[in-house]
Amino acid sequence: MTDQQNLKSLWGGRFTGGLDPLMQLYNASFPYDQKMYEADIEGTRVYTAGLHKLGLLNDHELSEIHRGLKVVLAEWEAGKFEEQADDEDIHTANERRLGEIIGRGIAGKVHTGRSRNDQVATDMRIYVREQLLEIKRQLKELLGVFVARANVEIDILMPGYTHLQRAQPIRWSHWLLSYATYLSSDLQRLEQVIERVNLSPLGCGALAGHPYGIDRDFLAKELKFDGLVPNSLTAVSDRDFVVETMFWGSLLMNHISRFSEDMIIYSTAEFGFISLADAYSTGSSLMPQKKNPDSLELLRGKAGRVFGGLAGFMMTLKSLPSTYDKDLQEDKEPLFDALVTVSHSIQIATGVLSTLTVEKERMLAALTPDMLATDLADYLVRKGVPFRETHHISGAVVKLAEDKKVGGIDKLSLSELQSVDGRFGEDVVAEVFDFEKSVERRDAIGGTAKSAVLDQIARLKKVLEE
Amino acid sequence: MTDQQNLKSLWGGRFTGGLDPLMQLYNASFPYDQKMYEADIEGTRVYTAGLHKLGLLNDHELSEIHRGLKVVLAEWEAGKFEEQADDEDIHTANERRLGEIIGRGIAGKVHTGRSRNDQVATDMRIYVREQLLEIKRQLKELLGVFVARANVEIDILMPGYTHLQRAQPIRWSHWLLSYATYLSSDLQRLEQVIERVNLSPLGCGALAGHPYGIDRDFLAKELKFDGLVPNSLTAVSDRDFVVETMFWGSLLMNHISRFSEDMIIYSTAEFGFISLADAYSTGSSLMPQKKNPDSLELLRGKAGRVFGGLAGFMMTLKSLPSTYDKDLQEDKEPLFDALVTVSHSIQIATGVLSTLTVEKERMLAALTPDMLATDLADYLVRKGVPFRETHHISGAVVKLAEDKKVGGIDKLSLSELQSVDGRFGEDVVAEVFDFEKSVERRDAIGGTAKSAVLDQIARLKKVLEE
Amino acid sequence: MTDQQNLKSLWGGRFTGGLDPLMQLYNASFPYDQKMYEADIEGTRVYTAGLHKLGLLNDHELSEIHRGLKVVLAEWEAGKFEEQADDEDIHTANERRLGEIIGRGIAGKVHTGRSRNDQVATDMRIYVREQLLEIKRQLKELLGVFVARANVEIDILMPGYTHLQRAQPIRWSHWLLSYATYLSSDLQRLEQVIERVNLSPLGCGALAGHPYGIDRDFLAKELKFDGLVPNSLTAVSDRDFVVETMFWGSLLMNHISRFSEDMIIYSTAEFGFISLADAYSTGSSLMPQKKNPDSLELLRGKAGRVFGGLAGFMMTLKSLPSTYDKDLQEDKEPLFDALVTVSHSIQIATGVLSTLTVEKERMLAALTPDMLATDLADYLVRKGVPFRETHHISGAVVKLAEDKKVGGIDKLSLSELQSVDGRFGEDVVAEVFDFEKSVERRDAIGGTAKSAVLDQIARLKKVLEE
Amino acid sequence: MTDQQNLKSLWGGRFTGGLDPLMQLYNASFPYDQKMYEADIEGTRVYTAGLHKLGLLNDHELSEIHRGLKVVLAEWEAGKFEEQADDEDIHTANERRLGEIIGRGIAGKVHTGRSRNDQVATDMRIYVREQLLEIKRQLKELLGVFVARANVEIDILMPGYTHLQRAQPIRWSHWLLSYATYLSSDLQRLEQVIERVNLSPLGCGALAGHPYGIDRDFLAKELKFDGLVPNSLTAVSDRDFVVETMFWGSLLMNHISRFSEDMIIYSTAEFGFISLADAYSTGSSLMPQKKNPDSLELLRGKAGRVFGGLAGFMMTLKSLPSTYDKDLQEDKEPLFDALVTVSHSIQIATGVLSTLTVEKERMLAALTPDMLATDLADYLVRKGVPFRETHHISGAVVKLAEDKKVGGIDKLSLSELQSVDGRFGEDVVAEVFDFEKSVERRDAIGGTAKSAVLDQIARLKKVLEE
Repeated sequence: MTDQQNLKSLWGGRFTGGLDPLMQLYNASFPYDQKMYEADIEGTRVYTAGLHKLGLLNDHELSEIHRGLKVVLAEWEAGKFEEQADDEDIHTANERRLGEIIGRGIAGKVHTGRSRNDQVATDMRIYVREQLLEIKRQLKELLGVFVARANVEIDILMPGYTHLQRAQPIRWSHWLLSYATYLSSDLQRLEQVIERVNLSPLGCGALAGHPYGIDRDFLAKELKFDGLVPNSLTAVSDRDFVVETMFWGSLLMNHISRFSEDMIIYSTAEFGFISLADAYSTGSSLMPQKKNPDSLELLRGKAGRVFGGLAGFMMTLKSLPSTYDKDLQEDKEPLFDALVTVSHSIQIATGVLSTLTVEKERMLAALTPDMLATDLADYLVRKGVPFRETHHISGAVVKLAEDKKVGGIDKLSLSELQSVDGRFGEDVVAEVFDFEKSVERRDAIGGTAKSAVLDQIARLKKVLEE
Repeated sequence: MTDQQNLKSLWGGRFTGGLDPLMQLYNASFPYDQKMYEADIEGTRVYTAGLHKLGLLNDHELSEIHRGLKVVLAEWEAGKFEEQADDEDIHTANERRLGEIIGRGIAGKVHTGRSRNDQVATDMRIYVREQLLEIKRQLKELLGVFVARANVEIDILMPGYTHLQRAQPIRWSHWLLSYATYLSSDLQRLEQVIERVNLSPLGCGALAGHPYGIDRDFLAKELKFDGLVPNSLTAVSDRDFVVETMFWGSLLMNHISRFSEDMIIYSTAEFGFISLADAYSTGSSLMPQKKNPDSLELLRGKAGRVFGGLAGFMMTLKSLPSTYDKDLQEDKEPLFDALVTVSHSIQIATGVLSTLTVEKERMLAALTPDMLATDLADYLVRKGVPFRETHHISGAVVKLAEDKKVGGIDKLSLSELQSVDGRFGEDVVAEVFDFEKSVERRDAIGGTAKSAVLDQIARLKKVLEE
Repeated sequence: MTDQQNLKSLWGGRFTGGLDPLMQLYNASFPYDQKMYEADIEGTRVYTAGLHKLGLLNDHELSEIHRGLKVVLAEWEAGKFEEQADDEDIHTANERRLGEIIGRGIAGKVHTGRSRNDQVATDMRIYVREQLLEIKRQLKELLGVFVARANVEIDILMPGYTHLQRAQPIRWSHWLLSYATYLSSDLQRLEQVIERVNLSPLGCGALAGHPYGIDRDFLAKELKFDGLVPNSLTAVSDRDFVVETMFWGSLLMNHISRFSEDMIIYSTAEFGFISLADAYSTGSSLMPQKKNPDSLELLRGKAGRVFGGLAGFMMTLKSLPSTYDKDLQEDKEPLFDALVTVSHSIQIATGVLSTLTVEKERMLAALTPDMLATDLADYLVRKGVPFRETHHISGAVVKLAEDKKVGGIDKLSLSELQSVDGRFGEDVVAEVFDFEKSVERRDAIGGTAKSAVLDQIARLKKVLEE
Repeated sequence: MTDQQNLKSLWGGRFTGGLDPLMQLYNASFPYDQKMYEADIEGTRVYTAGLHKLGLLNDHELSEIHRGLKVVLAEWEAGKFEEQADDEDIHTANERRLGEIIGRGIAGKVHTGRSRNDQVATDMRIYVREQLLEIKRQLKELLGVFVARANVEIDILMPGYTHLQRAQPIRWSHWLLSYATYLSSDLQRLEQVIERVNLSPLGCGALAGHPYGIDRDFLAKELKFDGLVPNSLTAVSDRDFVVETMFWGSLLMNHISRFSEDMIIYSTAEFGFISLADAYSTGSSLMPQKKNPDSLELLRGKAGRVFGGLAGFMMTLKSLPSTYDKDLQEDKEPLFDALVTVSHSIQIATGVLSTLTVEKERMLAALTPDMLATDLADYLVRKGVPFRETHHISGAVVKLAEDKKVGGIDKLSLSELQSVDGRFGEDVVAEVFDFEKSVERRDAIGGTAKSAVLDQIARLKKVLEE
């Protein structure tokens, strides 16, 4: 065969009646957008009320449409909605079904002046808003667990780390509240994202606006939107609310990945600071003695997943011509996956945190006198020695203790300390070599003193009550 | 040589006195963090005032420090600050220089109770805040150009596209305002980002808080922060403000990439809707007749660059152990690059937009009668025909015009139209086949009618006045 | 309730017998890893043959196991495999079912010395190899369509663009072959990726190797692997083959996105160079006259999707502790999605390209005399004028034609040309102002001359025959 | 002022003579592309030799050009090349300087038939090839350190981890070789990337090929390319070699990030397996006792940086119209940064690894009897017990030892063991409770036995000798 003949015959096989069945599969969104059935029905209910106000539907028509929509909704809720082969998306499926119930004559009017473009955008915004409100509730629950544990276990001390090296003693509650602080910012951001999600694109047609002067404010209010997208070209193609939602989730998951990393390290045999509940760990198929922190590893790993959705969709959006392009259909799968992943992850984190056991003796045992070297320097500062100098003196003390192998700077005698610097006094042991005192000394806002930790708890409780 | 000997000798070459010079290079941040010299000096000025309040510095010491800091600042501003070989970062460089000016005795006290960790975080937040405030000003200027052009050129009609296919007539101003709408959301987001950037980490020490009870609220207020980071562990390691700034910039650049894409297409010979000013286009080294839209292509391309900074740093942060890790030093280069890129891009976009020429005749010539097919359907809707039916009738009219090769649906006679559907009346030509009327009919909020466009302009002017 | 009581009661609700049902859902991979049922069964078949060689299974046991595996496979193929509630993944599901068929006594031996860790890695590599081999076949088919069209339509001329501005005339085939060149690199890369995918991790246990000295080469050979992963720690945790596969797909999709972008622009009313077949375009719900290139837009948009999978999983992998961590379970969903997306996209691109119509008159009409300005300069170069000078002369000619409004540089008289430069001769019209001649003049390798295009076709046909 | 007046006046300020100075800054690549000065000069040297072969340059001209290029090169190498204000990029700067040296008459001919488009692509490919060859050498050096340490320290045992939980004893060398295995794949991939980098685009003009029939094979051979890019449109716009280089670097850095993560954890006080040399760790400004693994943290953090460059540029490329667009100028900065970062990181990793101290007693002390539970199960397998059953028995033994608080399964008496399962014999202690024996038992390819580790070393040495 020649190339010409080849070209002609090549695609005969896949085609049936001029259609490429793979193209229909490639194009269809029904498998995943049917999640939005309720938002779609609600959108049509309100839109037709808007048409009725314009006189484009009479009382009977509106009543029939609303009756039919209730039937369709009931079918979905009962799991009895029957898909047809050419249900390309949830919007055509619902309209097709409505026509079967109330007749195509009336059903053929619900789309008057509305386009798939503004319809899709409307349905998505409603759906995302509802999901985010539920996620907000879950996030507050997780935040509540952090605060409650921090309150109950405020007396437990542990090493604070920088560079994963033991640095200074802190309260376990202080560590908990560090993550609570991140989550509290996530909560603030979420509220701002919801505000921008919750704007109505309805009544903008395909791109140029509504030809019969529909009351967009009425539509928005009925659908519980907080405002309008004020330009029709933008209304049908703005997917910033998708991007913002995924970025929000990705940053939250980033926090959870850091929390998980800490916890995974703290639950090693070597650290031994915490023990996970059995519900959140699993055994090994080959090593019967093991208890693996699978829950935490999944939490950590899924930070990548949510970021991937964000990164992919931002690439899809990049340099897209304005208004609606079919590329935008790629918004739903990563978004829906992100919503489920974030919601589940928050709940798993809540479960892990509320059921783990703190091994406070292991934490205490990990506090070593070296971690008080800064306090030793601070002691001298209070005696008037310039900080940079105290820093070197303190370093010399650490070195002396190592050289003498006494087992820590707290084991040096006063005269040994004074051999380094004469300004060390009798009070040094009582003042410096006490982990509790060290922690209590840091009582400025945000520090490790009990008062400062309780202040943080009070601030967060206020956030939770809002 | 054996492997053992090999190992021993391998690194002798690069080392000088136990140091690896490449490691110093790898570790140093001075080449890029010196940008923050002013924020660093201001941070130290205020921090030492805080120490003075605590009695840790006396009047003379404080006065000397502040005198010295002024000298250091003046050196920077005059471009006379002399770098030393071991100036690892801006913080050590400034402190070293201060010591040279006022003596190491007093200079050695400025760091009392402060750590590089809270110092770095403070300096960055001050620096970023100032940059973002300037960018906000530039963004408002760009938004102003969009609004001004939209107002002046409101009478120009052009094709509106979906899928890059001609869809319906719109106003050129409406297209401009579509991007202004995106930018106006960017402005709102920016204000929220600045609020979270502008929180003070100062007074948190290395990780555990301040040991002398410094007044963090005082420090924050003096440095014009809006509030505090309320947990010391978070204060030293929270880089969400970096991530948020880069995400903000990346989403803005995404909008600019879409704007540029439209403009690049509109400036092709085939579309011919706009002509760039010479200042923003360039000739070809090989093809003398060409005028390339380099400015727009750079604007489009740099959307990737800013996203890359975001993506990279989010990966760096992912699953990092809590508090400070050196990995965080990777925050500055992508952030500073993003700030410069976004600032320049906004200004270039402003230049391009305020100097381009609109070819309104080419735009008008691109309007074809087919684009009124929807209006034809709308005409019938107003005569009471169900929308889905009008859709088919309108399609049949388009097909008839094609079959008869009359050159457009507006060239069909009334009887030809009535051969498709008897409900077409004498008024059809006057009502439907007029681009201006089509545009004016879409007068709901956000539509193409002049009143609706003016309403958008009024909304945006209000935003600009805030 | 106090915080303490709160903590205790909080999670009672979700737990049933110490288990968190959401954790089981969060942890389970069966919903997506069941795709690998055949690879899993084949892996077990060969692994047990290896155990038999070691004497760890007798003839009867091996025969029973292989009989049972055949039954399990048949159930999968007939769609009759029945999932149980605790089938966590495909591996436990298959082993559970095998036990039901041949008894748990013998089935309990198939896992001897094998771990889930090496089993998962083995199954995945087999599965990915098979998918990539099929994708390779599809890619060659697409490449074949490019080559065939290029061959058949070699006489069609069109504008070549840089910066989307008309630059020089080229052959339509040359444009086609540009993308074929990209795809041919994709093909080369694919072959290299497959080589690294196709290495056997089997026989490495959980992490430390095989305790009974299994013949890993035998296992590899039977499973059609090309070699071994030579270190057991790496074998169980190396997911580079996943990353490489997704990067390969992402770069391919990047090429397809550029191809689609060109085609979308070429199919606008303004360019009008191509018409898509109905099978690959769709109408508008609101605008009956439109024909949208949905297929191309989806192809373009899905470049983001595949990249997102890569980006997300690379983040998941970043700084993961060595050997197996549960985070690695996040490999499958983005990988499987990428394989399906890439495979479908290649096939859709094949369909689009083999069915579109080229509007060669529109292409020809878009060639303008200005595009021969470079040829005019070349003419002078051949007369000995330095190139940089010819460039300016040619520019002056373009300007003259514009000033005189003659409608193009080919409309200037010889004396007008000579008024710019005296070296223009009588032959200039015949030599320069002919698009076909311009194209034919570029006959170095890779150029637009017919001979050079045919040479490219010959090279690609060779690649296809390999 | 009205909007119209505003628009007019708005940009007056920034412009000088119709030019926007910011646009020149935005557009210029000289600040970063001057790195390629040598490649650019070499490219011109060879290209003009090609023109000479065509008779487009005579002997004198060629000789003058080559003489001038030598002068330009010498100026660069001596650091004496003087930039001019309008040196937009390295290509114009070099040509400008050449003209100053040999006169513009002859210099004006070097560009004959060449475009900036093919020139840039050529220069970059030469530059990247040279950098990658150097990086290859560095990577082999790092690989050599892994192999040498593995060989020298083969007798040191340590815990092998999965999920960061102690799993089974392994050799320290085996852990080292796990990363060597990753690097050895990186080496293989690098060689394949270099092959695709090293293809010549020279002689393709702006987009359509060469109008004087230059001998592209000659040019390629002289510039040490391995072959040609066979299509001129592709030649000027293909940046896959940039993407591939950055992906290669990103995957390598991913491996290094995992290596660093392990090392950071191993160097904590709690693990204490390794001590970094002082050259690669730093003290704390506030905590004199600390020794932070800054080198490893930077290595880990920079994995994000290189990925960011890849992600950003892939977004820039996505859906770019074919042939050259100015967006492509965004290739250089991320690429050059990636090359430097990867090169430095490999060298730092080499320094860290070749100078660290292994704390073998701490490693040994971390081996606990529980880690032999699998060996206990294996013992029973060798007695004929089905694996799944041995797994449960072994688990019961672990539980018994915990309940009896004897301090490990090796402390149980034989009769206690037999109380769990009667098949335990006298040989169990000698056979099972010995870490060395456990490690030696895993002697299949890729296992922990000394023979298997030596086999890995031998394989890698072979790779290094290639």
